[in-house]
Amino acid sequence: MKDMLGRDNVISASAALRLVINGIPEKTLRETRTAIGDALGLICSRDIFSAEALPPFARSTVDGYAVRAADTFGATETMPAYLDLSKEIFMGEEPDITLEKARACAIPTGGMLPSAADAVVMFEHVQRVDEKMIEVLKPVVPGENVVQPGEDVRAGDLLIHKGRRIRPQDIGACAGLGITEIAVYERLRVSIISTGDEIVPADEIPGNGRVRDINSYVIAGMITEAGHAPLRKGIFKDEYDGIRSAIGSAVTDSDLIVVSGGTSVGTKDMIAKIINDLGSPGVLFHGVSLKPGKPLIGGIIHGVPIFGLPGHPAAVSVCCEIFILPVLNALSGLIEKIPAHQRGIVKARLARNVSSVQGREEHIRATLEERPDGVWAVPVLGKSGLITTLVKADGTFVIPVNINGIEKGEYVDVRLF
Amino acid sequence: MKDMLGRDNVISASAALRLVINGIPEKTLRETRTAIGDALGLICSRDIFSAEALPPFARSTVDGYAVRAADTFGATETMPAYLDLSKEIFMGEEPDITLEKARACAIPTGGMLPSAADAVVMFEHVQRVDEKMIEVLKPVVPGENVVQPGEDVRAGDLLIHKGRRIRPQDIGACAGLGITEIAVYERLRVSIISTGDEIVPADEIPGNGRVRDINSYVIAGMITEAGHAPLRKGIFKDEYDGIRSAIGSAVTDSDLIVVSGGTSVGTKDMIAKIINDLGSPGVLFHGVSLKPGKPLIGGIIHGVPIFGLPGHPAAVSVCCEIFILPVLNALSGLIEKIPAHQRGIVKARLARNVSSVQGREEHIRATLEERPDGVWAVPVLGKSGLITTLVKADGTFVIPVNINGIEKGEYVDVRLF
Repeated sequence: MKDMLGRDNVISASAALRLVINGIPEKTLRETRTAIGDALGLICSRDIFSAEALPPFARSTVDGYAVRAADTFGATETMPAYLDLSKEIFMGEEPDITLEKARACAIPTGGMLPSAADAVVMFEHVQRVDEKMIEVLKPVVPGENVVQPGEDVRAGDLLIHKGRRIRPQDIGACAGLGITEIAVYERLRVSIISTGDEIVPADEIPGNGRVRDINSYVIAGMITEAGHAPLRKGIFKDEYDGIRSAIGSAVTDSDLIVVSGGTSVGTKDMIAKIINDLGSPGVLFHGVSLKPGKPLIGGIIHGVPIFGLPGHPAAVSVCCEIFILPVLNALSGLIEKIPAHQRGIVKARLARNVSSVQGREEHIRATLEERPDGVWAVPVLGKSGLITTLVKADGTFVIPVNINGIEKGEYVDVRLF
Repeated sequence: MKDMLGRDNVISASAALRLVINGIPEKTLRETRTAIGDALGLICSRDIFSAEALPPFARSTVDGYAVRAADTFGATETMPAYLDLSKEIFMGEEPDITLEKARACAIPTGGMLPSAADAVVMFEHVQRVDEKMIEVLKPVVPGENVVQPGEDVRAGDLLIHKGRRIRPQDIGACAGLGITEIAVYERLRVSIISTGDEIVPADEIPGNGRVRDINSYVIAGMITEAGHAPLRKGIFKDEYDGIRSAIGSAVTDSDLIVVSGGTSVGTKDMIAKIINDLGSPGVLFHGVSLKPGKPLIGGIIHGVPIFGLPGHPAAVSVCCEIFILPVLNALSGLIEKIPAHQRGIVKARLARNVSSVQGREEHIRATLEERPDGVWAVPVLGKSGLITTLVKADGTFVIPVNINGIEKGEYVDVRLF
């Protein structure tokens, strides 16, 4: 279509996309339950709350001695605190003692603190006097080197919100809380209808004038990569009745319909006519200021979005990327800052100073925040023994080995999970 | 370990990674054959050559009239070339005529040119005089608006090289050439052995002092995301015999082994001892200048790389990301500029001027080149009807709607396929 000055009178790609997304009625998404081991990449359909605390008991974060912190106050290398040893604590065992004053017991990383103990002194800050006694060379404060009960997750906490794409650490957090099955949305079903009198299936030898189907494979691959379920519905001649019946049937079993091809004279108008004939609102735009992809048709039939794609493979790839995947994203129930197909590395400004010990490479977990002046990376605090620091984080950034910190406002590369 | 100045005497993460990668002997990767529809994300194990040309015949890229170009030379709106019409050409049909001089026949986009025709005049540049004659208002040169036989792929061309991760457009190119099954490498098998006296399975209620297995789920998820096959081998007590037998058996059926946990006192040394006892070279490093992840153990047993991961979930995630996935990448047979786990958007400098028509958004295919002065994006030339432009390209960049071109040397965002 041209206007009076001979310019292309077609809609912009972003306006065309909005027309479709805004035209889709609110729908109830199909849900299913799945084992956590199969949930990777699916979208959580219900808020997941924790029924219990993690850890359920106070755990040591180091190898050392469980103590009453007050017994170590004022201890130095020259004036150590002397503590008598009680029974050693082993992994996976519940200590059957209450720690008495001026006593300590050996405890491994992850071990359960005995009652009355409130801190752990690292092995490095202790000297063994004999079988029955240690010297503590450095004081600890209450809570030091201890993960408190519920410090990772408290009973009743919202663990994973509805609309999150399930990542490895989300599965880990569920496992840690005994949640082995979760509610997710079913994958979106996308029907792919190939049209064209010249198209034959990939496993046939095309006669002269004919070519094999390429586009339905490209489209199916892109839809699979994005986590949805392609349904290749076959190849149809450029005839009204056959294509109308294929689209009409796809409306009943699909969340989105892609018609590929229709490159011959008059076929594009036929696809548009079929979309209009099948139901309102029908065609929303026909032609986009986009290259490749200008002849794209977009519409909605009975609430199901439909795209008529031009036949050139490069146009198919671009139209999938900038129309079909975003519409599927909008339909998917995903509530996420960064859509799955845009993951990778994000440049963000650091929201506070972070220090590091020179001589080691440090990986810091962070959430991303969109602010008026750009994207900011907010470091996630918390001991590395907590699974929820990974669940809260959007990704990690690195403080290289020869740097002792990064200042607030500097740019960091956040690698998204 | 500390040196005389009390500094951590451990290896850097990058040196540790190199030790393992360089220590793995050359191996023959396992191959299998798969239907192209199931090949997405797998790695091609043999060069794929085309047995035929694509397209197999000269095709029109526009709706218009097939002509002998010479008959249109000198045509203008005021002095048009008059051509008599021959039989119309339909999609998917082989024209049974040879185009005579001073004649034209209507042809759809994708239609097969009749013999002796060497160009197509677009409908827009033609006026119909009557049923039997057209006026051509603008000349065409030989080859104009035509895809030549073999212009996309010639018989004998290398279509997809060994070591490529199969993308949607690669599947499309195979389909177009009738290649419906291809040789790929089998997914790498990664055994995950959880250890710890305190660990119980996710579906059990842990007694006091115990916690559920989190890490094997996090590791399995990360390995699955990277396209490999995790084998969760179960939970083992911190005892030499049981863990030795689990690792010994994993050596026989795995491409890589991950031992998770071993957080209790002495267990780390036990894992290191088992690795050394099971075969040479055994442990390659024990401790890395990395946070979180410092207690990491890396080694090789009978050619199979093995990692002993610290028990903290954040350390597990970091060690997976910077050790296990890169080693799997090195083992996978993948020959690629950008590893799969680093895909996303790449900033690159444009290698030549690219112009665009203002008023439309243009998507340009490009390959990436690493040059001494950085990454450059080289636009892939070729009509958008060619599938191989997508196969050659690493990704696309956009010329926005209000810009009429981008100059050589400017930065563009290349979205990788």
